[in-house]
Amino acid sequence: MLPTIKWEGELIKILDQRKLPSKKEWYTCRGYRDVINAIEKMVIRGAPAIGVAAAMGLALGASSIRTRSFPAFSTRFTLLAEKMRLARPTAVNLQWAVERMLRLVDRSAGRSVEEIKQALRNESEVILAQDIDINKNIGRHGLTVVPENSTILTHCNAGSLATAGYGTALGVIRAAHAARKNIRVFADETRPWLQGLRLTTFELMEDGIPVTVIADNAAGSLMRQGEIDLVITGADRIAANGDVANKIGTYQVALMARIHRIPFYVAAPLSTIDPATPDGEAIPVENRPPEEITRIGRAALAPPGVNALNPAFDITPAKYVTAIITEAGIILPPFKKNIKDTMRSRPRFSS
Amino acid sequence: MLPTIKWEGELIKILDQRKLPSKKEWYTCRGYRDVINAIEKMVIRGAPAIGVAAAMGLALGASSIRTRSFPAFSTRFTLLAEKMRLARPTAVNLQWAVERMLRLVDRSAGRSVEEIKQALRNESEVILAQDIDINKNIGRHGLTVVPENSTILTHCNAGSLATAGYGTALGVIRAAHAARKNIRVFADETRPWLQGLRLTTFELMEDGIPVTVIADNAAGSLMRQGEIDLVITGADRIAANGDVANKIGTYQVALMARIHRIPFYVAAPLSTIDPATPDGEAIPVENRPPEEITRIGRAALAPPGVNALNPAFDITPAKYVTAIITEAGIILPPFKKNIKDTMRSRPRFSS
Repeated sequence: MLPTIKWEGELIKILDQRKLPSKKEWYTCRGYRDVINAIEKMVIRGAPAIGVAAAMGLALGASSIRTRSFPAFSTRFTLLAEKMRLARPTAVNLQWAVERMLRLVDRSAGRSVEEIKQALRNESEVILAQDIDINKNIGRHGLTVVPENSTILTHCNAGSLATAGYGTALGVIRAAHAARKNIRVFADETRPWLQGLRLTTFELMEDGIPVTVIADNAAGSLMRQGEIDLVITGADRIAANGDVANKIGTYQVALMARIHRIPFYVAAPLSTIDPATPDGEAIPVENRPPEEITRIGRAALAPPGVNALNPAFDITPAKYVTAIITEAGIILPPFKKNIKDTMRSRPRFSS
Repeated sequence: MLPTIKWEGELIKILDQRKLPSKKEWYTCRGYRDVINAIEKMVIRGAPAIGVAAAMGLALGASSIRTRSFPAFSTRFTLLAEKMRLARPTAVNLQWAVERMLRLVDRSAGRSVEEIKQALRNESEVILAQDIDINKNIGRHGLTVVPENSTILTHCNAGSLATAGYGTALGVIRAAHAARKNIRVFADETRPWLQGLRLTTFELMEDGIPVTVIADNAAGSLMRQGEIDLVITGADRIAANGDVANKIGTYQVALMARIHRIPFYVAAPLSTIDPATPDGEAIPVENRPPEEITRIGRAALAPPGVNALNPAFDITPAKYVTAIITEAGIILPPFKKNIKDTMRSRPRFSS
C-alpha cells in the first residue's frame, strides 16, 4: 500500500485522494499553507490522517519561522497552530495533534529555536509512526469481534488512506483477513465523495480481500436479506458519552443495524475520543460545498442553480453503538464510565 | 413540462431521461423493438410511464404485422406482447398494460385486422390520457395528508417524467403547491441512477417548487434534526398485503421515517397494485448492470475490475407504510382488506 503522507527532505508529499484510484499523484507541500489547503480540499482526509498531516504541517511551518527568540518563535508558532485548527471542524484528531505540538513548544522554553524546530519535526515523525502502531493494535483487538466466514459492511474509508497506514475499521478487516477468518466486505460507495467506491475498494483489492461495492441505498435491503453479519466504521470524533460523529450516512447504517439486530462497531484511536465534548450535540458538523453533490467526476449532472445541502458528517447516538474498538482494547457500554476509565488508565501519547 | 412520451405520426418519441437535465433529446422508436430497448436502457423509466410506453409499443408493433387473418394476427401480437413483458421485471404496470392490450385483441375476434390495429392505437392513447387524469386524482386525494408549511422528503423520481404527466408522489406535491400550502421538498439524489439529482430537481425547479437535493446518506440525519415532516414516494409494485417495491433505498427511508415518527406515504395508481402478488417476497427485484454504480456520467470512478452489486429496487414491508394514495382515494391499514375493498369497488380501466 502506498503511504498516505510522507516527508521528503524539507517537503511533505501527500497522495492526492481526489484523484484515486485512477491517478496516483503526489501533492507537494512547501509550506504549512499547502498543508492547510490539502486538508481543506480533501487531498488528504480521514480523522487520523488529518491529525498526522496537521502535525507535519506545523513542523514544516515552524521550520520557516525566522527568529532566535523563544518568545517570538512561540508567538508565531501559536498563530500557525490557530490557523491549522480551522482547516476542518469535525475531526478532533486535528485539534489533538495541534495541541500536542503546542505543548511540545510550551515545554521547550530553555532550548534553542533550532532545537525546538528539530524536536517538532521529530515529534511529527513519531506521530506518523505511532499512528500505524495504534492501528495495528486496533486491528488486533478488533479481531475478536469478527466471526469466521462473516460478511462485514463498512461505510466511507477508514483505511490505510484515512490514517498513516493500516487503517482503523479496515485495520480490523485486515487483521481478520490475515487471521484467515474468510471474511468478505460490502463497501458503501459513500456519496457524495465516494470514499467507498474509490478508496475502500482500491485498498481491499490491493490486499486481495473480497469486496463488493454497493450504493448507500442498498445497505438496508441487504441487511433485511441477512447478507450482513456486522458493521465496522471509523469515527471523526467520539464524545465523552460515546456519541459518534462520522461520515454522513453512518447514522442511517447504525439505525438499520439495530433494527436488523446486527452489531455496529466503531474502530478509532483514543485520539478520536474527546473528553471535552460531552455529547454529540456539542460536535460541530461541517457543511461542505454543494458541488460535491451536484458535480460528479467533473460532470455537472444536476440542473444549473439547484439548491443542495451537503453535511459531511452525522451523529450516531451512543445507544446504537455496540462497542468502540481502540488500541487500548474494546470499550463496551456504558460508554460514559468506560470511556473515562479507559482514558484514565491509558494516558494519551501527548500527555 | 415536456411530455415524457408521445405519438408523432407513426413514430413514438420518448424524451431521453438518460440525458436530462443537461440535454433534451428525443429518442425515436420506429418499431416495438425500439420501445423495448428504451424501457430496458431506461430512456424511459418510472412504473406508470413504462406501462404507457409498453401499450404504445404494442400498438406500434401491431401496425407492422402483415396479415389479414385474425388468428395469425392474434398469434403474432401475443408473441410481441410476451417480448414486451420481459423488458423489465419489477414494475407491474408493464404487465398491466400488456394484459390490457392483449384483452382488447381477445375481445376483437369479429373485427378486421385493420380495425384492431386502429383500436390498439386508440387504446394506447386512452392509456396515455388516463394516466394524467389518474395522477391528478392522486394529487387531489394526497393533498389532504400534506400539512401547511411542511417539508416533504421524496426518493427517486415519481413525477411527470415517471408517468404520462403530472406525477404520483410529485403529483401530490404539485397539488399541495397549487393549493398554496407553502411546502418545500428535499429530494434524495437516489443513487445509482440519480433520478432525484437529475429529474426531480429539474421538474420541481421548472414548476417553481422549492427543492433542495441531498445525498441519500443525509436523509436520516435531517429526520433526526426535525427537518422533515412527511415522506412521499412512488411505487413500482404494491402486493396484495400492502408491501411496496420501489427504488432501492426506499426501504431505508421508510425505516428511518418510522423511527423518527414521520408519516411515510406511497402515491401510486391502482394499476401499480397487483392482487396476484401476495406479498413483497413474491416481487422479482431486478439487478441492473454494475456500471451504473462504478461509472458516473461516463467517468469510471471505481478501480477497474471492482465487484459491484446493483439491486434496482427494494421491498418496504406494509407495516412501515402509513397510507397508500391512489386515484380512488387514500388506502389505510389494514392494507390486505382495504386494498381488496378498493380494487373491488373501483374496477381497473382494463377490465
